[in-house]
Amino acid sequence: MVEPANTVGIPLNHAALLRDELDIVIPTIRNLDFLEMWRPFLQPYHLIIVQDGDPSKTIAVPEGFDYELYNRNDINRILGPKASCISFKDSACRCFGYMVSKKKYIFTIDDDCFVAKDPSGKAVNALEQHIKNLLCPSSPLFFNTLYDPYREGADFVRGYPFSLREGVSTAVSHGLWLNIPDYDAPTQLVKPKERNTRYVDAVMTIPKGTLFPMCGMNLAFDRELIGPAMYFGLMGDGQPIGRYDDMWAGWCVKVICDHLGLGVKTGLPYIYHSKASNPFVNLKKEYKGIFWQEDIIPFFQSAKLSKEAVTVQQCYIELSKMVKEKLSAIDPYFDKLADAMVTWIEAWDELNPATKA
Amino acid sequence: MVEPANTVGIPLNHAALLRDELDIVIPTIRNLDFLEMWRPFLQPYHLIIVQDGDPSKTIAVPEGFDYELYNRNDINRILGPKASCISFKDSACRCFGYMVSKKKYIFTIDDDCFVAKDPSGKAVNALEQHIKNLLCPSSPLFFNTLYDPYREGADFVRGYPFSLREGVSTAVSHGLWLNIPDYDAPTQLVKPKERNTRYVDAVMTIPKGTLFPMCGMNLAFDRELIGPAMYFGLMGDGQPIGRYDDMWAGWCVKVICDHLGLGVKTGLPYIYHSKASNPFVNLKKEYKGIFWQEDIIPFFQSAKLSKEAVTVQQCYIELSKMVKEKLSAIDPYFDKLADAMVTWIEAWDELNPATKA
Repeated sequence: MVEPANTVGIPLNHAALLRDELDIVIPTIRNLDFLEMWRPFLQPYHLIIVQDGDPSKTIAVPEGFDYELYNRNDINRILGPKASCISFKDSACRCFGYMVSKKKYIFTIDDDCFVAKDPSGKAVNALEQHIKNLLCPSSPLFFNTLYDPYREGADFVRGYPFSLREGVSTAVSHGLWLNIPDYDAPTQLVKPKERNTRYVDAVMTIPKGTLFPMCGMNLAFDRELIGPAMYFGLMGDGQPIGRYDDMWAGWCVKVICDHLGLGVKTGLPYIYHSKASNPFVNLKKEYKGIFWQEDIIPFFQSAKLSKEAVTVQQCYIELSKMVKEKLSAIDPYFDKLADAMVTWIEAWDELNPATKA
Repeated sequence: MVEPANTVGIPLNHAALLRDELDIVIPTIRNLDFLEMWRPFLQPYHLIIVQDGDPSKTIAVPEGFDYELYNRNDINRILGPKASCISFKDSACRCFGYMVSKKKYIFTIDDDCFVAKDPSGKAVNALEQHIKNLLCPSSPLFFNTLYDPYREGADFVRGYPFSLREGVSTAVSHGLWLNIPDYDAPTQLVKPKERNTRYVDAVMTIPKGTLFPMCGMNLAFDRELIGPAMYFGLMGDGQPIGRYDDMWAGWCVKVICDHLGLGVKTGLPYIYHSKASNPFVNLKKEYKGIFWQEDIIPFFQSAKLSKEAVTVQQCYIELSKMVKEKLSAIDPYFDKLADAMVTWIEAWDELNPATKA
């Protein structure tokens, strides 16, 4: 059985990488005791906590962490009517944190994620690995069989075109999970005891033109490169669907990264995911998504953005129009979602005014 | 430092998987002492040895192995004028073995490849893993972040469309190499001491639409599904290029697998690659390929086969026409190669007549 690492005794990392250029975004409804275990790795960084649910509740944050916290009242005050694009009673609310950050990089993590151990028993500094992933290029145009060619001890193999070896900028680093895998409700129900114990020592680029299921549990990205596309949609309270927030973001992000020539990596780092969510509750949240995605995936697989779309915002607005045109027939929800996508971009631009005229 | 496994003491596998349905193809110019180490795993199978170079030389095969051996005289006798499509003085000659086999599966391995150890120190039965890879489906239409969803302890993650979970038949299993990585001459020259010590415990499907550098050193495939596309081209004696035999096959195979809805897997199993080839000799063989591939890759990336092409042979003949039309401008070599592709298919069909009228 995989067990989380014991990080006690690991000295605090005072020379933390990108300390002034990265925010950690955590959506939560409870006290953040889980941060104790992360202290050696995360304490040097600034946290943006997005409190979901009842705003009158007080969230305790372990001492020594530097943070700002937003509850629903804050979101409503800051965004006004545009707050409608931020989900309530769903961890999709985390994307508000992406919007209010002023940093170049974001790392987002769920509060039931703990420090994993690598096969040698060493505690995995997940954030450090994410930063490495983001700072080195991606190779989406051709597959490298020895995985990330930029990693120490690896390179491009024979037959890899030299003109493609410079790679492209990495926009997203998608990390994985030991212990409880990120399964949908039907798979949870069928395999209640399955645990992920396989530590795969690899980072790889997801090839251009290929979609993937992006999980928001252990995720980092470059806000400047892709931030405005990291919208987690309308989920939770008052919506017909849940648990598709990160998936939705992932599909949009991948289509836009492919269009703009940006890279998406997946693999290391692992976190230790402690607790399976209730599969019955999950099924209720997911069931519409389970059949809707059969139409949504082909939609995104065939989505082509125009040459005129050269910024993430322009791409995202184009995508919102396609959603309205092509997906509204599935359910009126997509009409609402397409509008929310536009609102999201408006809110993003309001909070993140262009520095150059 | 990675060391090959010591397989002495491992009992011979008498219940070898697919024993009567698989041939092992080995191209060589020397005595096959390397088979001693493989005995526990490979002795139950039939070997097809393709002797390259001087046909008067005798190749010693360790006792107890069941094999047939073909030298250049045999190839000329069996194929007559069509023998021109089989390379000489180059391991590309191995594809003759694919053609004369009557089995459903092929495993091909170089004679400088030894048994690798997994991180626990256990000798890796490469063939067994290849067979597992070939017998379970591939998932080329959507990326699964937990790698091969059909492996024990793994599954499709949340957000993976259910309609795609059946997967497609696997045509190719591409294995990797510990110790000496499969680098091109320039990389060998720049990093003479680099060794691959990273054992990545993963098998994955190469997504549809993505090309990869297929190495012929440790490769298995389903002859019935993709055999006629496994042509290793014109290399070596009398040709302007070498060390692109497996790459060429890989590009053709991937385009045809994508067209026919077949899967290509890469990752496990590892073999231990013992000896780096001479980078100066390699550079001489490769240098034309290094710049030609800058045109060849875009050619294959954009190659579209017609709906009429429903068999591997039909696909391959279409591809040969495109090669003649589009690549001959690079060098007259491609004109000759396109003709050889046709000859190859003619020879294949002659040795493998359709069982049904």
